[in-house]
Amino acid sequence: MSAIQQQVEQASARYSSSFTQGHLALPPAKKYLVLTCMDARIDPVRAFGIGLGDAHVIRNAGASARDALRSIIISEQLLGTQEIVLVKHTGCGMLTFKNDDAFGLVEKNLGDDAAAELKSKNFDFLPFPELDRAVEDDVRYIKGSKLIPDSVTVSGWVYEVETGKTRRVV
Amino acid sequence: MSAIQQQVEQASARYSSSFTQGHLALPPAKKYLVLTCMDARIDPVRAFGIGLGDAHVIRNAGASARDALRSIIISEQLLGTQEIVLVKHTGCGMLTFKNDDAFGLVEKNLGDDAAAELKSKNFDFLPFPELDRAVEDDVRYIKGSKLIPDSVTVSGWVYEVETGKTRRVV
Repeated sequence: MSAIQQQVEQASARYSSSFTQGHLALPPAKKYLVLTCMDARIDPVRAFGIGLGDAHVIRNAGASARDALRSIIISEQLLGTQEIVLVKHTGCGMLTFKNDDAFGLVEKNLGDDAAAELKSKNFDFLPFPELDRAVEDDVRYIKGSKLIPDSVTVSGWVYEVETGKTRRVV
Repeated sequence: MSAIQQQVEQASARYSSSFTQGHLALPPAKKYLVLTCMDARIDPVRAFGIGLGDAHVIRNAGASARDALRSIIISEQLLGTQEIVLVKHTGCGMLTFKNDDAFGLVEKNLGDDAAAELKSKNFDFLPFPELDRAVEDDVRYIKGSKLIPDSVTVSGWVYEVETGKTRRVV
């Protein structure tokens, strides 16, 4: 067993020993979802004030709305979500490379077959060059999507990894 | 401003007022990622024992490895991740419907255009009928992918929303 796996087992024993929330229902009690980045420096529960059972939390590289579309539709159509809080963040890895850089790394590290598989799928790593504009673009994408009804409230934010603050963009 | 947006602003003020972790680096310090579901009842930090800055956390509907592929590649190729902890959970919404049910809802609630857009993309909501098997399938998918090197350690788990326990499957 790896050190990380041991850590999961220890956390499970500790967390379950004082766990009292087994009665919570499947649909998010406050009918919203938070879409944020996978970045290791973000703790959405504390930074954004999410109570257990209150909201879906979707996380991917860069808090991409396109990448999250499947989860957003399920949250909204099947589980009653009426509001989306989208949060990107300062110092995001997605600001540091372009698609061609990532393709180059895959080709170098994983070989021609892997690179060809990505290219055959028209793969997009979805990096972005400017933070606030990326928040605006993703909010516009959500509001413009046929697959998300206009009745859903959407806001866009930036979390500052340097200060722990979250500021509204749109 | 919505009640949810007010809650984000209040959390930001509270969290940042005692925030001391502004020095953390971009790459996850413990070089691993946790892939789990967006379900509102899961708090990965406490349930799985993740320290701030230690691990990427990817979340989507059902903790789907296919859906997370872009984020996994970025985490591994660009940010040094060497281990994946995949955690699905009891009572998951993805156990409760089939693709045709979701297509039907979209058609009924969002109209023929929206349904046609999904169908033109061969959209898959990625539901699954059996929990432990879905964990095994996704671990196999990761291990079999050309895009994730064999050197990455992968384990599969189930979090129990009733008890707060996380048990190893594979």
